[in-house]
Amino acid sequence: MLKNESLNTLRSNFKNLSVDALVIFSPVNIEWLTGFTGSNGCVFISKAENILATDSRYALQANEQSNQWNIRIGERHGTDNICQIIIDSKLSKIGVLEDEVSLKNYHSIIDNIPKSQRIIILKDINNPILKLRKYKNKDEIKKIEESAKLASEVIDFAISNISNGITEKELANNIEAYAKKLGAEKMSFDTIVASGARAALPHAKPSMHTIEKNTMVLIDMGVYLDGYASDITRTYWNGKKNTKFDRLYTLVKLAQSMASERAEPKMLGKEVHAIAETVFNEANINDLFIHGLGHGVGKEVHEQPYLDKKSEDILETGTIITIEPGIYIQGWGGIRIEDMFEVTDTGLRQLTTASK
Amino acid sequence: MLKNESLNTLRSNFKNLSVDALVIFSPVNIEWLTGFTGSNGCVFISKAENILATDSRYALQANEQSNQWNIRIGERHGTDNICQIIIDSKLSKIGVLEDEVSLKNYHSIIDNIPKSQRIIILKDINNPILKLRKYKNKDEIKKIEESAKLASEVIDFAISNISNGITEKELANNIEAYAKKLGAEKMSFDTIVASGARAALPHAKPSMHTIEKNTMVLIDMGVYLDGYASDITRTYWNGKKNTKFDRLYTLVKLAQSMASERAEPKMLGKEVHAIAETVFNEANINDLFIHGLGHGVGKEVHEQPYLDKKSEDILETGTIITIEPGIYIQGWGGIRIEDMFEVTDTGLRQLTTASK
Repeated sequence: MLKNESLNTLRSNFKNLSVDALVIFSPVNIEWLTGFTGSNGCVFISKAENILATDSRYALQANEQSNQWNIRIGERHGTDNICQIIIDSKLSKIGVLEDEVSLKNYHSIIDNIPKSQRIIILKDINNPILKLRKYKNKDEIKKIEESAKLASEVIDFAISNISNGITEKELANNIEAYAKKLGAEKMSFDTIVASGARAALPHAKPSMHTIEKNTMVLIDMGVYLDGYASDITRTYWNGKKNTKFDRLYTLVKLAQSMASERAEPKMLGKEVHAIAETVFNEANINDLFIHGLGHGVGKEVHEQPYLDKKSEDILETGTIITIEPGIYIQGWGGIRIEDMFEVTDTGLRQLTTASK
Repeated sequence: MLKNESLNTLRSNFKNLSVDALVIFSPVNIEWLTGFTGSNGCVFISKAENILATDSRYALQANEQSNQWNIRIGERHGTDNICQIIIDSKLSKIGVLEDEVSLKNYHSIIDNIPKSQRIIILKDINNPILKLRKYKNKDEIKKIEESAKLASEVIDFAISNISNGITEKELANNIEAYAKKLGAEKMSFDTIVASGARAALPHAKPSMHTIEKNTMVLIDMGVYLDGYASDITRTYWNGKKNTKFDRLYTLVKLAQSMASERAEPKMLGKEVHAIAETVFNEANINDLFIHGLGHGVGKEVHEQPYLDKKSEDILETGTIITIEPGIYIQGWGGIRIEDMFEVTDTGLRQLTTASK
């Protein structure tokens, strides 16, 4: 089981990290470790104990979702509950993760525990949870693949659903309703539907604009299924053949296929990004490629490893990534094509299945 | 206009707070100040400048949404962009808000600006943005009222939609699709539909359970409309009259009406909470009331002021709150009734309009 494996691995890291216990604040890390999905929680892991702290609204739910954890109910606000747990443990070196603790919680904890107990701030590079989450086990890969397949089915439906007179917002609503009908827990982010010149905004909000004939429609969406995210983008020309669109679409598609065919384990994120750039550079349009090539996907829709101009993240077997080159022209529109891949020993295996 | 008013008020606070500038990290605070809705942003406000920092994915969008702001495009990750803005400003006392800065960002900033520039950590109690956001102006109250009305229409629809054989998940999906059809931007939180004994979980996730005849259905939902949240709960008995449900429902309704009729400006959150407790205490069921009585609503669905056992938050004219007493019995179910109110000089004015 994921959680026990992870807990043992985490504990085996305590010595290297020079801590006796770890306190976890991030909801997504807590869900990944314990299964608990409440909005207020905090986890304490020592050699001897697994504690999930939450408030009375979630008492029953925590017992249901995290029955192997010792549940401690406290106040909804503040750090009293976790401070008491730290004090009761009598341990002297308590690790926290620098990217998930606010200055407020940090100060509130150090002000309320004895001086003999020290808070050790673990840098991102040593974050043992993100390191573990980056590699997916077989069960997780299966769940992510199912999530990617569901998103693919939905985006195929969406493209067949573009009819004269539909607004971007209506199409986004149809996408989300269909995703839920197929079993999606929720969307993994606010669905992007951008048509015509609005497609030049990589992260456009669906508007009340009607999708016109003879223009492009960019759809970027994803779902959560069984707790795991997916992410896919398609750009579709709604109307008569258009030479400019076809030429640019072919280049974006080529950038994507080149990057996904040549990527392999141990490459750096920036090296994979550079493969896509060579395609755009040869066509003299690399200035239109204004974002990173991709990102990891798992419990979160954006997580390690990142693929961009500067990324030193290493592609490793067992990680899941997107490859999503895009070009954007103000006043005209944009084209992005995004698919999800598993990094395997022999290269990338595509998980999304929607037509292009 | 909200933003200019707020900016002037903010700047007039700089002297009291002993800062020359403020750096804002929280996306909701940034949206409230600038209108920008991108997922990556940071705001710098000095006497002389209004700067919105983001990355290239959001360049066009930031110019569209925040055209009175000076937009600075930098890297997607890290603090290089904001550090350069701080350095360029040459100001010596830079304020940050303790609840919205992670240890990671804090350390990354102090490591990368000159020693002559100091970061001043502002405690929650001095958080000038939360103070401003707590009071809603007329325009905001109007938007929140529209959001509350839309949520009311949706929950009335939901209750008329409970039919034999529908699952909790299907009903939740219908609620969300209907809300979006009526124009909701998105839900303000994951819709709760809990039937029978599952209603004992105050924050239950909709399950694949069919809603049975002769059982209760608790629905808690809200929407975003024009950037403002709403929040409403109804509990409905689906079937033949049930004496236990009727008796407890009457008590919850009484606790709600007592609290909303007696609440007035300048009361503390804990005093309003205590009014509801007197009703439950008299019926000897106060141990079943396991959460706070309510919370503020605005750009966020949970914000100041809070109403609970310990809250020292003051009810002030121009704030918006929920009143939502509830009782929960493990193995049987739960009843919660929640409405939204504006705090006015003469007492509470109800904003939600759904039938009970």
